[in-house]
Amino acid sequence: MSHIWIKDKKIFFEVEGEGKPIILLNGIMMSTKSWQPFVNSFKAKNQLIRVDFFDQGQSDLRVGESYTHQIQVDVVDALISHLNLEKVSIVGISYGGEIAIQYAIQHKEKVDRLVLFNTAAYTNPWLKDIGRAWIAAGRTRDGEAYYNTAIPVIYSPIHYETNKTWMDNRKKVLVPVFSDPTFLDKVERLTLSSESFDVKDQLHKIEAETLIVAAEEDYLTPVANQVYLAERIKHAHLIKIPGAGHASMYEKPMLFTSLCLGFINTQDNQFNI
Amino acid sequence: MSHIWIKDKKIFFEVEGEGKPIILLNGIMMSTKSWQPFVNSFKAKNQLIRVDFFDQGQSDLRVGESYTHQIQVDVVDALISHLNLEKVSIVGISYGGEIAIQYAIQHKEKVDRLVLFNTAAYTNPWLKDIGRAWIAAGRTRDGEAYYNTAIPVIYSPIHYETNKTWMDNRKKVLVPVFSDPTFLDKVERLTLSSESFDVKDQLHKIEAETLIVAAEEDYLTPVANQVYLAERIKHAHLIKIPGAGHASMYEKPMLFTSLCLGFINTQDNQFNI
Amino acid sequence: MSHIWIKDKKIFFEVEGEGKPIILLNGIMMSTKSWQPFVNSFKAKNQLIRVDFFDQGQSDLRVGESYTHQIQVDVVDALISHLNLEKVSIVGISYGGEIAIQYAIQHKEKVDRLVLFNTAAYTNPWLKDIGRAWIAAGRTRDGEAYYNTAIPVIYSPIHYETNKTWMDNRKKVLVPVFSDPTFLDKVERLTLSSESFDVKDQLHKIEAETLIVAAEEDYLTPVANQVYLAERIKHAHLIKIPGAGHASMYEKPMLFTSLCLGFINTQDNQFNI
Amino acid sequence: MSHIWIKDKKIFFEVEGEGKPIILLNGIMMSTKSWQPFVNSFKAKNQLIRVDFFDQGQSDLRVGESYTHQIQVDVVDALISHLNLEKVSIVGISYGGEIAIQYAIQHKEKVDRLVLFNTAAYTNPWLKDIGRAWIAAGRTRDGEAYYNTAIPVIYSPIHYETNKTWMDNRKKVLVPVFSDPTFLDKVERLTLSSESFDVKDQLHKIEAETLIVAAEEDYLTPVANQVYLAERIKHAHLIKIPGAGHASMYEKPMLFTSLCLGFINTQDNQFNI
Repeated sequence: MSHIWIKDKKIFFEVEGEGKPIILLNGIMMSTKSWQPFVNSFKAKNQLIRVDFFDQGQSDLRVGESYTHQIQVDVVDALISHLNLEKVSIVGISYGGEIAIQYAIQHKEKVDRLVLFNTAAYTNPWLKDIGRAWIAAGRTRDGEAYYNTAIPVIYSPIHYETNKTWMDNRKKVLVPVFSDPTFLDKVERLTLSSESFDVKDQLHKIEAETLIVAAEEDYLTPVANQVYLAERIKHAHLIKIPGAGHASMYEKPMLFTSLCLGFINTQDNQFNI
Repeated sequence: MSHIWIKDKKIFFEVEGEGKPIILLNGIMMSTKSWQPFVNSFKAKNQLIRVDFFDQGQSDLRVGESYTHQIQVDVVDALISHLNLEKVSIVGISYGGEIAIQYAIQHKEKVDRLVLFNTAAYTNPWLKDIGRAWIAAGRTRDGEAYYNTAIPVIYSPIHYETNKTWMDNRKKVLVPVFSDPTFLDKVERLTLSSESFDVKDQLHKIEAETLIVAAEEDYLTPVANQVYLAERIKHAHLIKIPGAGHASMYEKPMLFTSLCLGFINTQDNQFNI
Repeated sequence: MSHIWIKDKKIFFEVEGEGKPIILLNGIMMSTKSWQPFVNSFKAKNQLIRVDFFDQGQSDLRVGESYTHQIQVDVVDALISHLNLEKVSIVGISYGGEIAIQYAIQHKEKVDRLVLFNTAAYTNPWLKDIGRAWIAAGRTRDGEAYYNTAIPVIYSPIHYETNKTWMDNRKKVLVPVFSDPTFLDKVERLTLSSESFDVKDQLHKIEAETLIVAAEEDYLTPVANQVYLAERIKHAHLIKIPGAGHASMYEKPMLFTSLCLGFINTQDNQFNI
Repeated sequence: MSHIWIKDKKIFFEVEGEGKPIILLNGIMMSTKSWQPFVNSFKAKNQLIRVDFFDQGQSDLRVGESYTHQIQVDVVDALISHLNLEKVSIVGISYGGEIAIQYAIQHKEKVDRLVLFNTAAYTNPWLKDIGRAWIAAGRTRDGEAYYNTAIPVIYSPIHYETNKTWMDNRKKVLVPVFSDPTFLDKVERLTLSSESFDVKDQLHKIEAETLIVAAEEDYLTPVANQVYLAERIKHAHLIKIPGAGHASMYEKPMLFTSLCLGFINTQDNQFNI
């Protein structure tokens, strides 16, 4: 429970455990708290670092500002400097994966291993329209409308059906959050910050050994996005999770955890086959 | 340009060409006019029958009524009786596919061959929530919001990107339509009529030779739905179209046309291999 | 039951039915007779042309000769000239698809529509080794060894399991054939004629509207081969058949028939969407 | 470099490193030596146990005997008892995965986590015929024929093409091995021992948390086999590796290593999502 200041704005972060450091970068509606179920396994043998981006969780808001991903990339760098880490492994999902990619492009010497779940190389026109639908739903301040607009593209149909009670509880928790103007305005700014995201031409700069995870039922950043990344990032390793949607870490938590920890903690990256 | 009356309500239909009869059943936002690009090929060697369901195109509205799919199934039957057709082949996409399935269950003796594009056996909770998002967007009367909510789940990302001008034109045409209260109320009633759709337990009753077409980028009725149908319909033949979304007929018009005509017009359904 | 002479060698062919002409080109171990189950549907509305390549069926052998695919491409052209056909649609599977591609490259003005089942753009080193295994098995003159070497890469595991009686009968028929030195030597020459096949750099020359069919359980020319073709042939349309192997026409005869006839007989290839 | 005796037969094994124990079970043509490239990473934080089954590597032959998998399952149990291990995690690939499954069924209290690469629940008739082709090729004592019969179903086409030099070297190493009557007879007995393998009805007995890895280009135990396992093993987690064949560990060594170590070393298997 600590924070750093970037200019006059506060960024919230948490560090737990000891070992090879891992930073987890949040998806757009997430916060440091969203990772709670995974903390125990991640901190068992690693130093786990969680952070709230601007307009997330306990970090400061950017009310009235229009910004790009770059302010979040700079958050990551400020945090790594603050923690005096020479090299760090980064796990990002969705929005967090996009920030992770950009960090790995801009600060390649500081990235050990990179793990990208449900991540794209750019915001295509289709995804931009989906974001616009979220924004329009948010502006109605109708939490149920927002839920119905955003959640079915985040969870897979099979997860909805086979975890009905869990989804019902999730709805009860989320509808009030999705009715809160402060939250909705934060997510609107975060959504808009993604519209200009495009690193298609810079993927070749990534030097880190990179695990790319695609969820076969991801209908927000479908598998084609991860195949695109895997074909252009030098040291890329691609796997697919069947039966999981965009929120793959919640749908398949043990796979999420073991894929991240396995890839980051494996000693060699060259095998004399 | 004809119509029949069901009780005191008018149903609009069109018949063109001669040969083995084919009825095309519309998706939820479609009408007889939506098939215009396909008419030439379909009527070349077949009798082509198009029809507007209640609350579609030039058929009568059902303002203030809550109804199920059954009224549309009855539309199909009234039309087939009116045309004195003994047997007919039916092509349905999405909503139209669901009506086609129910017709084939209830009137199996009247169905020759059945072609189902982008069709499900039931409205799962996930799809129901998507429908609810459409309804909420429709009630804002904001055509652009409705467009952004509904269109990205109908067209695939790749279609969006590689047909940008076409999509831009489509948006110009659709936003005014999606701002029209009469249209939005019609689609709301049609959407609600799908909520109770569930023929999981009746699929075994279908006797027709059935072609089931799945589009690999369909994010509204994903491939798992068509696999489900194919595993339960007796004489089912499943194929997949890569790189196409829910509006597969518009994304891949030549495949749509040739798959329908090939399957319906092929003489044998038994091959002495 | 006719033949043409190419130099002093006889080529056997058959023509049936009337309408838009379709030539069926055989896979490596096939002959005109292999298409018997499909004749009825194909000749119903089309002129159906079947032909045995050199070293196939009732056409002449090329004992002691080493040749490339070109002699078979020339067979196709001689036959089309003999029949005075201005334009013809060609369906090829596997070896026949490879000849069809080359014909469409070399004689683009004579090809109307092209249908390629289970076809590759070149013989990769992996496929070459499989061919070498067939040849080695053939040289043992042990029909059962040849059957076990060649048949499991031709039929899918699911076809094996769900059509056990059919497969057992097939084995009874094939083992004697696969013990016949004349047959084995023919297939050896045909196999060798494929080793140099490579039209990767010429696919852009194909002008014909082309349907490319991939079988998802094809373990001889797997799906990646058909994706490769679809990405490089100008007017290509790709579909996939789940649950079928390399001998897709025997595993899914109604799909084979309706896909071919639908694609070839559909009037338009442009749709004003 | 140790051994145990089972009755009067020697079984060779090696133990390295310290930590949570992992036993690696060999594919049919493998031996303890085949894992050499992975030892460094596996022993870094775990106790790594390798073992040669009967008729493999440095373990004793079973000349003139016909046996089933059970003798190998008993090898695993004898070794675990000898090492006084209460619980062990098991990684198996192909033949080794089949032994691992049977061990987990028969000795569920001794298995911690289970990792199955490229594994089937039974030897279907198709796979049996492939095995018969290997046996026939082996009996010719022609190493190149055996190579061409067995290797293309083990490595993916893409691996063949993109690692040509590596494959050429592999061929130079393997052809002499595949010409050695002792080796060929060993593999024949191992192949025959798989013919009766069928645990379809016992998969529900497995209690271990299980990672199932399918390689999308596996043409010996294709993806459908792993889907089958995943649907029937209680605590199963399925992932797919695109672009890899049956020898997935050699085609994707870093994925193989990090998947195994990540899944076995992750602390929790329950996540309070």
